[in-house]
Amino acid sequence: MSARQAGVDADSGTAYGRPAPTHRAELAEVGPGTPMGELLRRYWHPIGVAADASETPRKVRVLGEDLILFRDKSGRPGLVYPHCAHRGSSLYYGRVDERGIRCCYHGWLFDVQGRCLDQPCEPGNGAKFRERVRQPWYPVAERYGLVFAYLGPADRKPVLPRYECLENLDEGEMLEANANSIGGGGPAVIPCNWLQHYENIADSFHVPILHGAFSGTQFVDQMGLMPEVSWRVRDAGLEVTAVRRMPDGRTFRRVSEAGLPTLRVVPSPRVGQYGRVESLGWVLPIDDHHFRIYVVGRVKQVGDLARMRSRQNGKLWEELTEEEHQQFPGDYEAMVSQGSIARHSEEHLATSDRGIVMLRRLLQQQVETVAAGGDPAGVSFDPEAKPIEFTAGNYLEDQD
Amino acid sequence: MSARQAGVDADSGTAYGRPAPTHRAELAEVGPGTPMGELLRRYWHPIGVAADASETPRKVRVLGEDLILFRDKSGRPGLVYPHCAHRGSSLYYGRVDERGIRCCYHGWLFDVQGRCLDQPCEPGNGAKFRERVRQPWYPVAERYGLVFAYLGPADRKPVLPRYECLENLDEGEMLEANANSIGGGGPAVIPCNWLQHYENIADSFHVPILHGAFSGTQFVDQMGLMPEVSWRVRDAGLEVTAVRRMPDGRTFRRVSEAGLPTLRVVPSPRVGQYGRVESLGWVLPIDDHHFRIYVVGRVKQVGDLARMRSRQNGKLWEELTEEEHQQFPGDYEAMVSQGSIARHSEEHLATSDRGIVMLRRLLQQQVETVAAGGDPAGVSFDPEAKPIEFTAGNYLEDQD
Amino acid sequence: MSARQAGVDADSGTAYGRPAPTHRAELAEVGPGTPMGELLRRYWHPIGVAADASETPRKVRVLGEDLILFRDKSGRPGLVYPHCAHRGSSLYYGRVDERGIRCCYHGWLFDVQGRCLDQPCEPGNGAKFRERVRQPWYPVAERYGLVFAYLGPADRKPVLPRYECLENLDEGEMLEANANSIGGGGPAVIPCNWLQHYENIADSFHVPILHGAFSGTQFVDQMGLMPEVSWRVRDAGLEVTAVRRMPDGRTFRRVSEAGLPTLRVVPSPRVGQYGRVESLGWVLPIDDHHFRIYVVGRVKQVGDLARMRSRQNGKLWEELTEEEHQQFPGDYEAMVSQGSIARHSEEHLATSDRGIVMLRRLLQQQVETVAAGGDPAGVSFDPEAKPIEFTAGNYLEDQD
Repeated sequence: MSARQAGVDADSGTAYGRPAPTHRAELAEVGPGTPMGELLRRYWHPIGVAADASETPRKVRVLGEDLILFRDKSGRPGLVYPHCAHRGSSLYYGRVDERGIRCCYHGWLFDVQGRCLDQPCEPGNGAKFRERVRQPWYPVAERYGLVFAYLGPADRKPVLPRYECLENLDEGEMLEANANSIGGGGPAVIPCNWLQHYENIADSFHVPILHGAFSGTQFVDQMGLMPEVSWRVRDAGLEVTAVRRMPDGRTFRRVSEAGLPTLRVVPSPRVGQYGRVESLGWVLPIDDHHFRIYVVGRVKQVGDLARMRSRQNGKLWEELTEEEHQQFPGDYEAMVSQGSIARHSEEHLATSDRGIVMLRRLLQQQVETVAAGGDPAGVSFDPEAKPIEFTAGNYLEDQD
Repeated sequence: MSARQAGVDADSGTAYGRPAPTHRAELAEVGPGTPMGELLRRYWHPIGVAADASETPRKVRVLGEDLILFRDKSGRPGLVYPHCAHRGSSLYYGRVDERGIRCCYHGWLFDVQGRCLDQPCEPGNGAKFRERVRQPWYPVAERYGLVFAYLGPADRKPVLPRYECLENLDEGEMLEANANSIGGGGPAVIPCNWLQHYENIADSFHVPILHGAFSGTQFVDQMGLMPEVSWRVRDAGLEVTAVRRMPDGRTFRRVSEAGLPTLRVVPSPRVGQYGRVESLGWVLPIDDHHFRIYVVGRVKQVGDLARMRSRQNGKLWEELTEEEHQQFPGDYEAMVSQGSIARHSEEHLATSDRGIVMLRRLLQQQVETVAAGGDPAGVSFDPEAKPIEFTAGNYLEDQD
Repeated sequence: MSARQAGVDADSGTAYGRPAPTHRAELAEVGPGTPMGELLRRYWHPIGVAADASETPRKVRVLGEDLILFRDKSGRPGLVYPHCAHRGSSLYYGRVDERGIRCCYHGWLFDVQGRCLDQPCEPGNGAKFRERVRQPWYPVAERYGLVFAYLGPADRKPVLPRYECLENLDEGEMLEANANSIGGGGPAVIPCNWLQHYENIADSFHVPILHGAFSGTQFVDQMGLMPEVSWRVRDAGLEVTAVRRMPDGRTFRRVSEAGLPTLRVVPSPRVGQYGRVESLGWVLPIDDHHFRIYVVGRVKQVGDLARMRSRQNGKLWEELTEEEHQQFPGDYEAMVSQGSIARHSEEHLATSDRGIVMLRRLLQQQVETVAAGGDPAGVSFDPEAKPIEFTAGNYLEDQD
């Protein structure tokens, strides 16, 4: 025994015996019937760019649900449950006509609201029976070059919001939509939980580290300065103000917002010009373990959004070797490596994480409101509602 | 509240809040000890063509069980559990000799009935001990160019059936066997539950839709006509009669049968000639999520069966692009897209599905019979039993 | 009924109705908190060769735990939990400096014992807060060209053992380390449970079968002779003595040892020279379903160990076709095909398996000792402990 004790040195804090990690399921998980899933289902979400809804049916996955997006030959977009109400073959193999989409197996025809219009193998084309059949469907609407869907309870469907920054264009500007997860730092579909990216909006401090000290100046020089950051809950979101003292004595004030429930209101980190935010991003939870980002922005030329994609070591993400991914990590590496869902129980949040804490609390409050039967912040049922305005932007100020 | 109500439009029947789908496990699942698994184990099933049983051991998967098929140097086919009764190394790496198959690890030798004949590392070659060891095995028998196996209880083993349509050959005909799932519309192994394909035999109505309106005339013109269909349970199966009125006034009467438990008795949809059915197909459930089809037919030339493989857009299944799979779907697309196992709870069966309902009921009755200790329909224990006859065929009739 | 009984032949011992296989979890499974996992965690295990610990962080998986191995710019190897204690990004994307490794996301810096030395986004670099943060870590030590880690409770950490056969080099010899699972018969990472390989040390009988009769003379002629084998528990392991009568009348006595808990003390099966064992191998359980082997040996030239890799049919494992794997199976095929974890419930152990039984019993005893609060055999807490000596070797004797 004395021999063993002699051999003991003071190894404290080792990884032995640590508890299994857990995550905050009520904030991260998005499937039907989950707390966050029900909250997210109270809002409209983009599920494709306009061209994704076409005569060729397309598989989409949204909030853990597999669905089929199409556009009938009358131009109406439709979003339906994949399995035909008859025998379950997928409408991915369906054929669209002027009135809707027809299943390949026995030809049942459904309109964009799931009504069954024809049953060609039934007597009288299913005259009576077909009225009792409904293909499960979701409401969709197009705006800003995106197709939005509402996956929630019918009697709680809010109006599809308008945003001032996308309504009022400056001279020579046009709107452009992009589905390739600009701002995610990697490919179009990013294999981790959506919350890890959404929280990052509230995290101004990682910029000079991850996008500066580690990977070189990814954006512009002034973004490499350590900011002073303040946060406040404002309307239906969290406003983040990062103030940087410039070498020339001026002040660079950068305001971002995380709009409920998934909106990125983030001015360009390249700071091509000062002023109000140029684009919006929607973090779409595909399922618990994947997300993607749809972006709409005011641009001068077609393709401007795509040119915003970040580069590490001068390369696009998919061009990097494994060693370069290690040497020049970006948002993808930092967030995906947190895990398929981050291990919240193991975090040590510090003063610089106050925005993360506030944003989680704001989400938690909305989850509780919905669970209690109420409507969450940021939804409107007024068709005449004014466009939503943001304070976000990059601002240069001569003095404090 | 008034604001919200103003925003509500009449969205009924949306996909929100729908119950989780379920399937009829007692009809679909095939593993040991399951209701359908026990029913299926009362019949012989093909597990390979004759050449598949060779001196090179071959992995086969049948009814959810992994097994090894081989042929000893005396010409006897054998089907054994993969893991050697000694220490569990796979007999896939075994070596066959005149007497059986020998494990690579310590050389134990087993005959085709699993008896241990040699233990070379044991004193006296395991003289006494080896008699207490049995490698788990299944009875096999060869017929019509196929190797059949019986995976059920030993005391319920029926005789291996003969079929009239394969016993009596017309002038110039020969038998040919094929393992490539002809009739399945895709590759040799099809990734969905076997029942989805087996039920399709009772479904004459999909032919003019899936194989006509959608994918163009895959077979012959008259198959594109909408049939009148009647069904009846006959002997150990379901007989399906599809009657089509031809433009020239004659009547095309096509009879197919679904023989218990997995037999396709389907005359050629190409109708090369009128008359009795030319081939039989066995739908082999590989496991709950995969099946394949073995076919034996009377042919004029070697390769005639392979030439029967269906084409979409003029191409074999594996030659199609993803977009062509969508534009020219066939049986593979219709059935695999029902899901790994179809969602029976979500179906809306109509009058044209009466055959499906009857076939499921017939299967359900057999499941119950076996569960109650009885023998299911279609098994015979009489070695002198006459070959089974079918009514199936393509028949042309001048008048009703 | 008489018809059925007439059809019954005497099929006994078929695979129908056999019970589901089970394995001895308490011996095979290695995760935290499992009986064997806790036993294994009382010993040091190699987790890389010295060069694997470098300024480029490396993912390692040990006993079911994912960890990051690195070396700081002061030359100290470190082994840490991947997810940064702050927000969980992986230290795989971290950057090392003289003092430790820094997370890419917010720059927290940890030394090789997990102490947090810097929090650049916090006031005063986290002056006080950082002392309350510890990155989970494990002790590591370098010896014989390998990096060893101790994953057990801090107060039970034994001294890292020395071995006589690696301490005392003969004239012209040097030590060489190899990470490529020499002796495993396949690739560096072998996809089955570690115990299947470890037990094989006690199994001298498979040599003339698997490595002789099946795959041709893999080693040297005398290894193809059937040995007489005896086993005894000696110190902290099992000693296996295989005696072969040579055609010239001399006796070839080969002694191997299985040292607790994973040590291969196996003289070269190529018998390049007679004498004491030349190398040691550590069977590292990566997780329940994978292992690898680290080897250190006394060699004459760099690369001698790599040249020991076994060949089947004259080829390295990765050069074989599937058919050659079947025709010329080696340790990889025999052991991996036992299953991801061997089915212990289905074994039929014979007299030649006595060593397997003894080795399992020895492991079982250690598991029980640890569960009862004791220290297992073979650990020492004496920093002055003498190097461990083995009896293993290839010996040629003129007479009995």
